[in-house]
Amino acid sequence: MSSSFGQLFVVTTFGESHGPAVGVVVDGMPPGIPVEVTEIQRELDRRRPGQSALTTQRQESDRVEILSGVFEGVSLGSPIAMLVRNADARPEDYEALKEVFRPGHADLSYFEKYGVRDHRGGGRASGRETAGRVAAGALAKAALTTAGVTVRGGTVQVGTVKAERRDWDEVEKNPVRCPDAQAAARMAEEIAAAREQKDSLGGVVEVVARGVPAGWGDPTMAKLDALLGAALLSIPATKGVEIGGGFAMCELHGSQTNDVFDGERFLSNFAGGIAGGISNGAEIVVKAAVRPATSIGKPQTAATRSGGTTIIAIQGRHDPCICPRVVPVAESMVAITLADVWLRQRAVRGREK
Amino acid sequence: MSSSFGQLFVVTTFGESHGPAVGVVVDGMPPGIPVEVTEIQRELDRRRPGQSALTTQRQESDRVEILSGVFEGVSLGSPIAMLVRNADARPEDYEALKEVFRPGHADLSYFEKYGVRDHRGGGRASGRETAGRVAAGALAKAALTTAGVTVRGGTVQVGTVKAERRDWDEVEKNPVRCPDAQAAARMAEEIAAAREQKDSLGGVVEVVARGVPAGWGDPTMAKLDALLGAALLSIPATKGVEIGGGFAMCELHGSQTNDVFDGERFLSNFAGGIAGGISNGAEIVVKAAVRPATSIGKPQTAATRSGGTTIIAIQGRHDPCICPRVVPVAESMVAITLADVWLRQRAVRGREK
Amino acid sequence: MSSSFGQLFVVTTFGESHGPAVGVVVDGMPPGIPVEVTEIQRELDRRRPGQSALTTQRQESDRVEILSGVFEGVSLGSPIAMLVRNADARPEDYEALKEVFRPGHADLSYFEKYGVRDHRGGGRASGRETAGRVAAGALAKAALTTAGVTVRGGTVQVGTVKAERRDWDEVEKNPVRCPDAQAAARMAEEIAAAREQKDSLGGVVEVVARGVPAGWGDPTMAKLDALLGAALLSIPATKGVEIGGGFAMCELHGSQTNDVFDGERFLSNFAGGIAGGISNGAEIVVKAAVRPATSIGKPQTAATRSGGTTIIAIQGRHDPCICPRVVPVAESMVAITLADVWLRQRAVRGREK
Amino acid sequence: MSSSFGQLFVVTTFGESHGPAVGVVVDGMPPGIPVEVTEIQRELDRRRPGQSALTTQRQESDRVEILSGVFEGVSLGSPIAMLVRNADARPEDYEALKEVFRPGHADLSYFEKYGVRDHRGGGRASGRETAGRVAAGALAKAALTTAGVTVRGGTVQVGTVKAERRDWDEVEKNPVRCPDAQAAARMAEEIAAAREQKDSLGGVVEVVARGVPAGWGDPTMAKLDALLGAALLSIPATKGVEIGGGFAMCELHGSQTNDVFDGERFLSNFAGGIAGGISNGAEIVVKAAVRPATSIGKPQTAATRSGGTTIIAIQGRHDPCICPRVVPVAESMVAITLADVWLRQRAVRGREK
Repeated sequence: MSSSFGQLFVVTTFGESHGPAVGVVVDGMPPGIPVEVTEIQRELDRRRPGQSALTTQRQESDRVEILSGVFEGVSLGSPIAMLVRNADARPEDYEALKEVFRPGHADLSYFEKYGVRDHRGGGRASGRETAGRVAAGALAKAALTTAGVTVRGGTVQVGTVKAERRDWDEVEKNPVRCPDAQAAARMAEEIAAAREQKDSLGGVVEVVARGVPAGWGDPTMAKLDALLGAALLSIPATKGVEIGGGFAMCELHGSQTNDVFDGERFLSNFAGGIAGGISNGAEIVVKAAVRPATSIGKPQTAATRSGGTTIIAIQGRHDPCICPRVVPVAESMVAITLADVWLRQRAVRGREK
Repeated sequence: MSSSFGQLFVVTTFGESHGPAVGVVVDGMPPGIPVEVTEIQRELDRRRPGQSALTTQRQESDRVEILSGVFEGVSLGSPIAMLVRNADARPEDYEALKEVFRPGHADLSYFEKYGVRDHRGGGRASGRETAGRVAAGALAKAALTTAGVTVRGGTVQVGTVKAERRDWDEVEKNPVRCPDAQAAARMAEEIAAAREQKDSLGGVVEVVARGVPAGWGDPTMAKLDALLGAALLSIPATKGVEIGGGFAMCELHGSQTNDVFDGERFLSNFAGGIAGGISNGAEIVVKAAVRPATSIGKPQTAATRSGGTTIIAIQGRHDPCICPRVVPVAESMVAITLADVWLRQRAVRGREK
Repeated sequence: MSSSFGQLFVVTTFGESHGPAVGVVVDGMPPGIPVEVTEIQRELDRRRPGQSALTTQRQESDRVEILSGVFEGVSLGSPIAMLVRNADARPEDYEALKEVFRPGHADLSYFEKYGVRDHRGGGRASGRETAGRVAAGALAKAALTTAGVTVRGGTVQVGTVKAERRDWDEVEKNPVRCPDAQAAARMAEEIAAAREQKDSLGGVVEVVARGVPAGWGDPTMAKLDALLGAALLSIPATKGVEIGGGFAMCELHGSQTNDVFDGERFLSNFAGGIAGGISNGAEIVVKAAVRPATSIGKPQTAATRSGGTTIIAIQGRHDPCICPRVVPVAESMVAITLADVWLRQRAVRGREK
Repeated sequence: MSSSFGQLFVVTTFGESHGPAVGVVVDGMPPGIPVEVTEIQRELDRRRPGQSALTTQRQESDRVEILSGVFEGVSLGSPIAMLVRNADARPEDYEALKEVFRPGHADLSYFEKYGVRDHRGGGRASGRETAGRVAAGALAKAALTTAGVTVRGGTVQVGTVKAERRDWDEVEKNPVRCPDAQAAARMAEEIAAAREQKDSLGGVVEVVARGVPAGWGDPTMAKLDALLGAALLSIPATKGVEIGGGFAMCELHGSQTNDVFDGERFLSNFAGGIAGGISNGAEIVVKAAVRPATSIGKPQTAATRSGGTTIIAIQGRHDPCICPRVVPVAESMVAITLADVWLRQRAVRGREK
């Protein structure tokens, strides 16, 4: 099931970046949940290319069509299939790359795996695949809302600039999707500078889930940490994950990082809301390390299919920093994961929690 | 399947820390692979308590028994069940904790999840569960050996002390399991100091896999990054994961982090051997952030089952730094993950790769 | 994963009978397999309504569109999504049934399960869902062809009329899809008579797979018998399955039913090509019992949503005997199952077999 | 996951017939359910060899040991591992068969699959593997009891003798486990006659589940019919399954087989309690065709590993008719399946049903 995520809330994406369409099937959406196509579209608009000066100029309206599973405005409990047609595909941009394995891209590994590939824009490895995830994430968010859970995210680091604040209402007010307006301005400058140099820049995206009750997740192999880690590391370009205190805890002592529960609330949240793989009632806090986009205009040495090398400068239309567009994807993957463990906990206990 | 990991090489652990036994069933071991119980025991000895002054003094000989799936020294292709009896369980150490939720532990979240718990030493949430993982990891390593893959790991950070070198042959020569002898000495001092203060210390464990050919892993939801991330984050006390360059890449540019393949080899390895979720032929390199052990002797405020709080100082026998014992567990989880994607790639291509 | 079938060759259908579309995602199609849309369409034409006087007169051209996973005529190894738009949906035919639970249908159980339903034509429970299975089955057949396996089926019983011969080339020459031309004529008469009476008739569909080598399938829970049984019993209206000798063996002795292998071939095939859950190299032979279609024009007592009963005579356009249309569906489910175990066996042995 | 059954109530068996032990891990047992080892033992005693003159004289006390997941008499929600040691294994009985593929057995297919095998008594393919299923079934029954569901079964046909009555309280009173005392006596005679001839005899086992509410099961691929069919066909020697009316319905009309619900109850049960794959509130009724045992004393032609043939007369101790011992296994597989769909329905609706 290489293209599916989840056990009870199962998300399966399909589609190549330059094929007819990308899309998703969500199997396991509970019945009776209000589903608004406008809400799904709103989330897709946060992910789509061309939305600001900081993102790729590829123009895709990314209109979503619901094909099944919704009747008279509510979910039926059956699979919900959603489709986004590819419109502004310019395969000719990629013709020159047919025989070339772009550095940092999956071109080589993909070819070695399958022995055949759609060389046009990364095909299945393209970030475009995440459109289906975001559509599914909108459903997951709708489902979680009925359980009192909200999921929000933002860019908290770009290059060396870090957000100092977490004002989640600020996120949609700046093109970086940073929860700190001041940091956002500096991040935007860094991104513009990278673009100017035909280069790209990495960053960190953080996602927070509020309202998750204690008891979601499992104690061993399917720890909530592990599921969220997989969810985030399945997003193109992510190369690291932190739950709560993350790597910073390695330099601390247990007396500092053991979150004390005073009978009402936790006095700290180094655990990121997850103890022993199970939610503990505190906010779920996760971070993803987003590497610099691999498509850059700067000349680079690239291997060729015939075994030699060549110098390429990737043309096409690309993102100098993909964090702003990763935000809705990361939120979606967290929401999908939480929807799944929510349903699993209903199975364990036989009632809402 | 909360207690299983993998799709084709499926590892299912069972057992509470103070119940009759812990163990594992490995379903999907390819047939015809030599299986030596002494080799499995050797790996378990690396994980068992009481092996050095730096680890818990709980004494468990951790003798493994193979119950099935091996005949005349080779795997049959059927499930291999392995059992380790619990010997030195002292439940009376935990009687005082029956009504208390230890800070940092899963006591609270576990109780909220199930409504019932084995309060003796964490039960299922105990690190003792990882004995089964290590036994399974020994099988995974044996299987991978036939594919030319080796998996090794070590402690590369304890507190603020970092390993500067990666001399993997050094690992078993020091009690910290650090691939840098000089750093190991300083790490051991730090750990001893933490123990002196009845406190604990975090660290970082790194695992490297050599010999993985290009083509293992999947491009979207089951990216090798995601599977390895889940594998590591399913280990008790891990709260972060990095693949290759990890979080450090966030501060860099694409022109720096795109690994150039010169036709023969990669000139850098920011991708950690995985491009687009698929192995690219370079070394697989992953790191896990290990938080300070939550069991400490220092007095702490703890919530009680009746809703109040109390002050506890955890007695029992505990590890001041669990990194040395996490090393074989992390290696095992990486080996299990690679065995799984290896088999999946055989299914995709219909031949060894 | 209630809407998916398979572990490595994973088929997920979606769509309600009177929603925008039905379709399927096939994840796990091996790369490099030639895929012809005309071949998929040919299989769908065998299943579609309105193809003969013996089937429903609902007119659906059932044109398939491939959305992903195929490039330049071959499979990429990525998910293949396929779509069939619903055209001749006449929901008004069903308005009268909004408050009624039709006898034999899933109306009641479906409503009890989800608390909400699309009452138009059975929604998800409609036989229309099988269009996706047939499209997926065409891919499975294409994949199996490369392994030397062919799958064929036919109607071998309608009411009390049984086929005496198995001339598979005859199947597409008569509207009953019976491999015995003489029996086919009598079956057609029986079906016409049932329709005349506004009633329906049951039957048996048999599927045979040739070329399956010894070694496919698993010995315990995932016996090939079990997988094929599930495959067939997941088809609407099937209520029984036989592998090889089936129920008739219950009256025989072991000395009669033990298939003797003379070193070259089996002298009988009571096992239906499967011994201990694993293919033994003989033909795979399975049968499905197809109950009489539940939609009949005859007046029947039906429960209503308000708790009472009413008399209904189902209008709309229905099949008096669905066996002819079940044939391609049963073939598809068998092919999908075999494609899955084929890939699994490649994983077990690391080579084609 | 070739050795596992279920999605949320997951049963994984292990063990060869002549290895150290057979056993099972049940992952997903809901927490807080009373678990009595005596009750599990009672079920195992119904399955064990040597219990009556009609069964094999191999003597196995089959004492079960619970290794995990139960604390103070109730389930913890964690995996429950159970072990049965093999005692009366006489591998020397099988030495002669090392180079022979017994007719009807899985010897050949197993060897072709794995390239290696434990030739002693079928190894993994032995009926002995079902001990783990029965232990798991006892847990499933205990869980279902809390949901008001009971599962009972019996032998309803041996050779040509059919039970006319379904007096389930009669089952344990006769060695055939037939719910019809008079038929039981004739069945016993038939079995004795078959044994006299060093031959074996087939039969039919029926299982009935009472108290299953409407709404369990899924509408398409995971129809309850399909899951139960797989459950029964995964039992060694079963070669057919019927749900409700089964194959007899093929000869009937829809007006006869559509079960009418009069607002309170169904007036017939051709559906076997399952409509559209979902339970409808009526009794679940399933049947399994059990082929004659393949181990017979009569001389038979058998293929040899070297490619020739030989004449063998299987010595050892075998069952002339395995139906009496299949009864608890079939009940167990039905109970396991129902426990699984019960938990899934709790996930769908978020409450007990």
